Amino acid sequence: MTFTGMLASAWVKNHSLLCVGLDPDPARFPAHLQGDIFRFCAEIVDATADFACAFKPQIAYFAAHRAEDQLEALIAHIHAKHPGVPVILDAKRGDIGSTAEQYAIEAFERYRADAVTVNPYMGRDSVEPWLAYQDKGVILLCRTSNPGGSDLQFQKIGAGGTALYELVAEKIAREWNTTGQCALVVGATFPGEIARVRQIVGDLPLLVPGIGAQGGDIEATVKAGKTAAGTGLMINSSRAILYAGKGEDYASAARRVAQDTRDAINRWR
Amino acid sequence: MTFTGMLASAWVKNHSLLCVGLDPDPARFPAHLQGDIFRFCAEIVDATADFACAFKPQIAYFAAHRAEDQLEALIAHIHAKHPGVPVILDAKRGDIGSTAEQYAIEAFERYRADAVTVNPYMGRDSVEPWLAYQDKGVILLCRTSNPGGSDLQFQKIGAGGTALYELVAEKIAREWNTTGQCALVVGATFPGEIARVRQIVGDLPLLVPGIGAQGGDIEATVKAGKTAAGTGLMINSSRAILYAGKGEDYASAARRVAQDTRDAINRWR
Repeated sequence: MTFTGMLASAWVKNHSLLCVGLDPDPARFPAHLQGDIFRFCAEIVDATADFACAFKPQIAYFAAHRAEDQLEALIAHIHAKHPGVPVILDAKRGDIGSTAEQYAIEAFERYRADAVTVNPYMGRDSVEPWLAYQDKGVILLCRTSNPGGSDLQFQKIGAGGTALYELVAEKIAREWNTTGQCALVVGATFPGEIARVRQIVGDLPLLVPGIGAQGGDIEATVKAGKTAAGTGLMINSSRAILYAGKGEDYASAARRVAQDTRDAINRWR
Repeated sequence: MTFTGMLASAWVKNHSLLCVGLDPDPARFPAHLQGDIFRFCAEIVDATADFACAFKPQIAYFAAHRAEDQLEALIAHIHAKHPGVPVILDAKRGDIGSTAEQYAIEAFERYRADAVTVNPYMGRDSVEPWLAYQDKGVILLCRTSNPGGSDLQFQKIGAGGTALYELVAEKIAREWNTTGQCALVVGATFPGEIARVRQIVGDLPLLVPGIGAQGGDIEATVKAGKTAAGTGLMINSSRAILYAGKGEDYASAARRVAQDTRDAINRWR
């Protein structure tokens, strides 16, 4: 099944726009896990899968700990136990030609991710090797949630008032997304810009990082980003879920926060 | 020693502006190596080290083959056998906050690279976690050598005629390079744009991919990019060196091409 098909099914089946981010930091694990990255993540996954529309492991947290094998095992675990929930490998890769092909082998053949995050700075031909995997999703950075995101993304292009992130959204929607595999990353810290991207890209899915369990921006994010069908979003929460509990009951604490976050999102759909 | 110090010493000691790119593709190895990535790369390194100002392993080629351990061993080998030649990990990472910190641990603590390539799209705060390693180099994408590089990098900013890649060069030179650790990637396919970047960034080092053993663009690249001192460049060649020979003598074939390329570069300094 394609990534977009899996995602659309998960939106309905789990009545959820919540993406659970897997950023495992062993220093924050409950003591009884003794730093076991696979076990920590797998227990979080099993506790939250029925409230999630996607899981998003961040590869840097595995690579920093020489834990590539645990990332492989984790994604295999998600596919085996929760086959309806797609896996987004958050890697923000960006390169060209044969190098991009190697990165695509890494993400899609080695790790068997359903989608990957990609940086658009090198342009269309840096995206094509990913699109060659026709059932996979390619989620391009558009407007990122960090303060420095404005340094380039908010620059105005030409004499008109178009910002770079708007141009990126236009290029993706009109030129790069020829196969229906593309989605975009738009940070939750800028609801007005989520609305602008939604206006440009029609119903393409948006991955929205930058939201916590508190729900401060949830209303604005959902209102700005939802499609007419009340879907179109993968609203990511990582640390607020992963580290909701510090003890042996961390997975059930994570489950409660995931459910609360899903429900807080659904209130505004 | 700092990356910039090592690089400056290697320019002089090896009388070389040549960076040897390590993009190992086992399908192209001589048969007797039986796909041994470490051995292939280590023999190339040993055969070319005295003609190189830097080595640049491309991490995608290792990750696609589950060969992270061989990349670790390769960089350790370069440090042990050729301590005067810095190692650039070509990873084109780009992320923020704690994730960028994990990527920096991967590149600088796990792999012990002397410098890393980084994508600027997410802005200044995505660069800062790398700069926290004060002896390391941070080489930012500016103008890439692929056709799609123009999609974003050649967009004109505001009503004036400044292209995005020029703005990136200005930001790096004037705002981001507070610690003297930054360098820039500028493709060899655009000598006029190498000259423009050199004009903007003063003596900052430029990593220039896109050149082969044939030397078609070497004259234009060196003339456009050299500093007043006749240095300032890391001109990368990968496949033309790695695959110069197909048989058991591949390392000596690589040595000849590396020497020829170094000398062709030096003709125009």
